[in-house]
Amino acid sequence: MALILTFLGKSGIARSKIAIAAAKLLATQGKRVLLAGLAEPTLPILLETTLSPDPQEIAPNLQAVQFQASVLLERNWEEVKKLEAQYLRTPIFKEVYGQELVVLPGMDNALALNAIREYDASGKYDAIIYDGTGDGSTLRMLGMPESISWYVRRFRQLFVNSDLGKTISESPLIQPLITSFFNVNWTADNFSQPTNQVNNFLDQGKAALANPERVAAFLVTTSDPIDVANSRYLWGTAQQVGLTIGGAILVSDQQNTNLSAEFTPLPVSIVPDVSNGEWQPLIDALPNFVEQALQAPKPIDIDVHNRQVRLFLPGFDKKQVKLTQYGPEVTVEAGDHRRNIFLPPALSGRPITGAKFQNSYLIISF
Amino acid sequence: MALILTFLGKSGIARSKIAIAAAKLLATQGKRVLLAGLAEPTLPILLETTLSPDPQEIAPNLQAVQFQASVLLERNWEEVKKLEAQYLRTPIFKEVYGQELVVLPGMDNALALNAIREYDASGKYDAIIYDGTGDGSTLRMLGMPESISWYVRRFRQLFVNSDLGKTISESPLIQPLITSFFNVNWTADNFSQPTNQVNNFLDQGKAALANPERVAAFLVTTSDPIDVANSRYLWGTAQQVGLTIGGAILVSDQQNTNLSAEFTPLPVSIVPDVSNGEWQPLIDALPNFVEQALQAPKPIDIDVHNRQVRLFLPGFDKKQVKLTQYGPEVTVEAGDHRRNIFLPPALSGRPITGAKFQNSYLIISF
Repeated sequence: MALILTFLGKSGIARSKIAIAAAKLLATQGKRVLLAGLAEPTLPILLETTLSPDPQEIAPNLQAVQFQASVLLERNWEEVKKLEAQYLRTPIFKEVYGQELVVLPGMDNALALNAIREYDASGKYDAIIYDGTGDGSTLRMLGMPESISWYVRRFRQLFVNSDLGKTISESPLIQPLITSFFNVNWTADNFSQPTNQVNNFLDQGKAALANPERVAAFLVTTSDPIDVANSRYLWGTAQQVGLTIGGAILVSDQQNTNLSAEFTPLPVSIVPDVSNGEWQPLIDALPNFVEQALQAPKPIDIDVHNRQVRLFLPGFDKKQVKLTQYGPEVTVEAGDHRRNIFLPPALSGRPITGAKFQNSYLIISF
Repeated sequence: MALILTFLGKSGIARSKIAIAAAKLLATQGKRVLLAGLAEPTLPILLETTLSPDPQEIAPNLQAVQFQASVLLERNWEEVKKLEAQYLRTPIFKEVYGQELVVLPGMDNALALNAIREYDASGKYDAIIYDGTGDGSTLRMLGMPESISWYVRRFRQLFVNSDLGKTISESPLIQPLITSFFNVNWTADNFSQPTNQVNNFLDQGKAALANPERVAAFLVTTSDPIDVANSRYLWGTAQQVGLTIGGAILVSDQQNTNLSAEFTPLPVSIVPDVSNGEWQPLIDALPNFVEQALQAPKPIDIDVHNRQVRLFLPGFDKKQVKLTQYGPEVTVEAGDHRRNIFLPPALSGRPITGAKFQNSYLIISF
């Protein structure tokens, strides 16, 4: 189980520099580090080396890998074909080669998240630094275990009882495929017992995201007010996804820039830019990531005893936060992200008796 | 039918400034312009106004809209429910409210592309400026008509002949849904006759993308070498998607910066940054977008007479370009994008007799 760290912010080059510096820092502390980036030139230029879709050692304790969606898709396709061959008498997929497959929007995110999951499970790394797009798209990616599991909870019963659901559950392929991918059994019986799912794939992802010792992100900003506003927006959005933001990192050569008010209660670390290939001053100015992540406000706090749910939603004002209860769950909307809150049995199904938005917290009473 | 313009590059704030300046320029030329951005604070701050999911006039001839994926999903869901109610005796979806739906990765791209398509078809605009993520994700989005139609061409026959396909084609919902969404009939007969599809949704998207008077993008860069390298990478990747890049725009206060060598044969326009809210110097320095787009190299040129296909792949060297023929089509891989080339009947199915990579062109002979 590794610590998974990522960085959010508008300036991609600054983010990549911080990611590299963080990877170097953790590696010199003796941690086995994997630095994972996207298929684009920033990391190779900054690291002064080519990167490949398989991890390669670039310094002691430090490996780097480039997620190429096409290659990841190819490799996963082989697994799909094996499953198909196992379950279907007349396989469709076996005639299609992984090398032809085109990546559609969203697949790249799903493939990258799956690759991180596999590297995490490999036990080879103590820390994985993901240098992704650092925007809403990265947040949707990290939110996938939760959002997919909402679709499963919401649609399974409706689906299983429908004509179409009955047809598909009789299909010799679909059910094994779903079982294999999500480690859940696509039948009404299992789905109505959430306890059966504890060990599954999606719940593991949700548990990791909810634990700041496992997954945390830091905001990277310059002193440009637009950059600051975007970082604050990403901060709030990250909370909606359930991702802990440990702190803000301000890239500035002026030590007296003060952004504390914008990011209260997070600590703001001021770090210098890399100049002439000198990484050490940047590395030395980095915060202690785990320590800060553990002290950061939790995105969600469910207090069964007081029948309250508190959501930390910084960067938004009251008008930007919407609370509704159309379906069976409580839906919170802020920014462009929606969250359906999966409540424990003690609160689930109860009507909302009150809600207020105070000091960046949405407090819902049941 | 509008001109659809977008900007690619690593610096999001610079891209948004160029997008706004371009929108202002075209509006003052008398064109009816829609400026469409994502749900994040950059555009509202630069425009000094709030934006909503519906277009609002912000200057004469100039409307602005913010694509909020949650809202777009809600609206599209209503359409899906209507279709379902029409075709299914026991609807599943009607019990799920659009207001609960969570956006999964990829949906945001599909919804934004669909919104652009609808605004384009509305006839209300002469130009749509899309201020998106400006990275590989925007390119995958614009490439969707082509990549989805590849999945359709590649899988339909295999699927229709399979047990699963037979099951689904008998379903009272799936077939009407596919027919409605893609305007294609999910039966073996129709699929084997590509001419029947000429008027469909995906082909319209492909035709628009292939026409530089309809869809074009410009690279936005600073003089930072990492920024330049990323712009070159996006340039090559855009060609793989079939998107014309009309030129490069260098944001710099130094008129003597010279990046012509990096972007040959594209013109490089040097524009000043916006300072103190002064947009005019930036607007005055912008290129003539349509003129440059029309003169730019075409991403693909199919020469039936000489049995040649020429692909323009700038920014890549020979080792980064891969040509294979695993499936029924020719597959070209460059960067992290794969393209299956749909050939006209005269070349389709012929073996490749030669291929060379010369002056950024991949020339394939049949």
